[in-house]
Amino acid sequence: MSMPNILIQLDTDPRPSVFDAVVAIDSGVERLLQYGGVTPENVRELVHGAIFTRGPDDLKHTAIFIGGSNVAAGEAVLSAVGEAFFGPMRVSVLMDANGANTTAAAAVLAAAKHIPLAGATAVVLAATGPVGSRAARLLAREGAIVRAASRNQARSESACEAVRAAVEKADVSSWQTSTPDELAAALDGAQIVIAAGAAGVQLLSVDARKAAGSLRVAIDLNAVPPLGIEGVKATDKAADRDGTIAYGALGVGGAKMKIHKEALRRLFAANDQVFDAEAILQIGKELA
Amino acid sequence: MSMPNILIQLDTDPRPSVFDAVVAIDSGVERLLQYGGVTPENVRELVHGAIFTRGPDDLKHTAIFIGGSNVAAGEAVLSAVGEAFFGPMRVSVLMDANGANTTAAAAVLAAAKHIPLAGATAVVLAATGPVGSRAARLLAREGAIVRAASRNQARSESACEAVRAAVEKADVSSWQTSTPDELAAALDGAQIVIAAGAAGVQLLSVDARKAAGSLRVAIDLNAVPPLGIEGVKATDKAADRDGTIAYGALGVGGAKMKIHKEALRRLFAANDQVFDAEAILQIGKELA
Amino acid sequence: MSMPNILIQLDTDPRPSVFDAVVAIDSGVERLLQYGGVTPENVRELVHGAIFTRGPDDLKHTAIFIGGSNVAAGEAVLSAVGEAFFGPMRVSVLMDANGANTTAAAAVLAAAKHIPLAGATAVVLAATGPVGSRAARLLAREGAIVRAASRNQARSESACEAVRAAVEKADVSSWQTSTPDELAAALDGAQIVIAAGAAGVQLLSVDARKAAGSLRVAIDLNAVPPLGIEGVKATDKAADRDGTIAYGALGVGGAKMKIHKEALRRLFAANDQVFDAEAILQIGKELA
Repeated sequence: MSMPNILIQLDTDPRPSVFDAVVAIDSGVERLLQYGGVTPENVRELVHGAIFTRGPDDLKHTAIFIGGSNVAAGEAVLSAVGEAFFGPMRVSVLMDANGANTTAAAAVLAAAKHIPLAGATAVVLAATGPVGSRAARLLAREGAIVRAASRNQARSESACEAVRAAVEKADVSSWQTSTPDELAAALDGAQIVIAAGAAGVQLLSVDARKAAGSLRVAIDLNAVPPLGIEGVKATDKAADRDGTIAYGALGVGGAKMKIHKEALRRLFAANDQVFDAEAILQIGKELA
Repeated sequence: MSMPNILIQLDTDPRPSVFDAVVAIDSGVERLLQYGGVTPENVRELVHGAIFTRGPDDLKHTAIFIGGSNVAAGEAVLSAVGEAFFGPMRVSVLMDANGANTTAAAAVLAAAKHIPLAGATAVVLAATGPVGSRAARLLAREGAIVRAASRNQARSESACEAVRAAVEKADVSSWQTSTPDELAAALDGAQIVIAAGAAGVQLLSVDARKAAGSLRVAIDLNAVPPLGIEGVKATDKAADRDGTIAYGALGVGGAKMKIHKEALRRLFAANDQVFDAEAILQIGKELA
Repeated sequence: MSMPNILIQLDTDPRPSVFDAVVAIDSGVERLLQYGGVTPENVRELVHGAIFTRGPDDLKHTAIFIGGSNVAAGEAVLSAVGEAFFGPMRVSVLMDANGANTTAAAAVLAAAKHIPLAGATAVVLAATGPVGSRAARLLAREGAIVRAASRNQARSESACEAVRAAVEKADVSSWQTSTPDELAAALDGAQIVIAAGAAGVQLLSVDARKAAGSLRVAIDLNAVPPLGIEGVKATDKAADRDGTIAYGALGVGGAKMKIHKEALRRLFAANDQVFDAEAILQIGKELA
């Protein structure tokens, strides 16, 4: 009898994501089991069902995907999944709640195509959000000088703490960008800006962007108008916008999708992998 | 990598229909994603997952089925699905909540086998219900003189309004059939009667049927005894019952199932189709 | 068009068991439809969807699995499923809520490898629980002299009544084992002991086990430390423990899994089978 690859989609939303399901199917997953409303409290039994059915040698043919719109909830489930494993009785796990890991990895790799990240100064707008916090973390790990920007100083500082906790020797600083002057100060001397704000919220005007003369790469991850960076189109993919290399959400989306599918495929190479932000960035690098 | 046909089953009931799932599988759908408890409010995210994963050329390999026991709820979801599309980013949709469209189409086509519908007088009993209202609409579109019958005059008139709104130049009139005399009047001179009432409710007695001397075709869509038309058996398929050609619910069921499966297959021919009552009748005609 | 084997997983828990789903896939089921939160009240419509889609000759390609952590709830659903069938319009059903049937069958067959069950005296500890009650019933049917033990005399007597109701001429007696002396009395002269208690609860100490000189086979179905029988390891499979042949939960698990998969496969041989405790034991015998 064949041993099909089974992906168990654990989603913290009531109805598991169609997006994640279709991508799983298109990555070649042979059987998909979808679960919604997953919490740290109810995930243990689901994980036990995954690890106590197939033999140790076959466990690599079962894997877990953690998704849902709430990244913090996904992280809590990821932690609970790890605690439910018993020594070698475990399966590989991909965490990509809200697409945050694959999107952040794709954005960082888009920037890296044009500028060596080590030593570059990169501003992350809305660094306090799920995608922004991961982008900041990945940039710091790649050696960039990271400016974590938020309209609120305290939240920006919290984002910095999270980066420092995850990345040894991170060069990250907090920037409040609640006024045009504060925004201009945060962008002063930076080569990279990544806008990771909520859908439909403009974070950077054309004027502010043009005034930041040092900018070489501008990446906007908001696909819903008004976009996060004025003048960048959602479909921009290394487009020239007033002398800056620009990417829109859809322009980054192709790479995000490739990373997402490749990560799903690699889940089934072994039964002890955990793909969170850094591992997913590494997969993206190998694909490039 | 192959691109399997994915059907997303959106059901307004808490647990998505087993019936619709099995028919989908038997129609050849390669991957089925089942969602229950779908509402106009939560469907948008599900639709976006369907349209923002595969490329434009591949979107025809993803489709949506809308089902559930409540036809009005299904119609509201159908409307919300349409609003969630973005220009060419869309997938084909089959609406068949409660089996109403495929059942009404099969019933109308059964009648059409024996009588040219254009100019025929057709009585729809319980024309106010989900199947009856669709049968009335389809008969009117085919040129029949439609008598929409209900035990309640006001509801019957509402059913007529709905037909007129859907079909230009519909010849449809409302008939209250709360007494034997009213029922006899509604049937007087009619060649076709379709009983589309609730399960287990008799709408037409043997005596009333025999008294309607003009009747040539009697179709009963209720499979649960007591049946809607006394003396017709659920398995009747063009059976002779006292000189009338009779169909029961199971007798119509074979054609309904063929239409249902063919509609599912055709979903995957293009990404911009919407199969509601009329399109489903057309599919049935082409199958006949 | 091919006619794939469809298994409809009806689970009384909110989220259907991953364990049961993976085993179903590995048994060769081609399509799995998962339903959680199933009750006797909502199962009727699901069953009708199963029996009113495919033709009578093809109904053997659809089957139902009943699972969930609550065995009494599963039994109520099994009863409701039976009532929803219409004469020959039915599909085969496997009832294995909480794995109770397959586990009890595997435990009884493990004992039978070493001792003829007919005439042997067998003590079931926690005979009041879902697995214990089935083990007692199966042992009685095989002709063993069954001692149904519980810490509570009244519950033990209820367990005996259930065995007598299921097995004609059952030789079963109730034993209260709330003290070491009562436990010693229950074990006195017995050749077999099966511990079917809750996870993490020790029912039999090393000393008590050694004191029971007549014991030849000791089977513990609790996999979570502390185990039910002290000194038996979860992985024991016919291991020698102080002169007694010992089985732990994982040692029985292999046979349980084989029985579970074979029962799933046999579901699709006909459309009128109901696999509950006895039928599952029979399948296990034929596998041995």
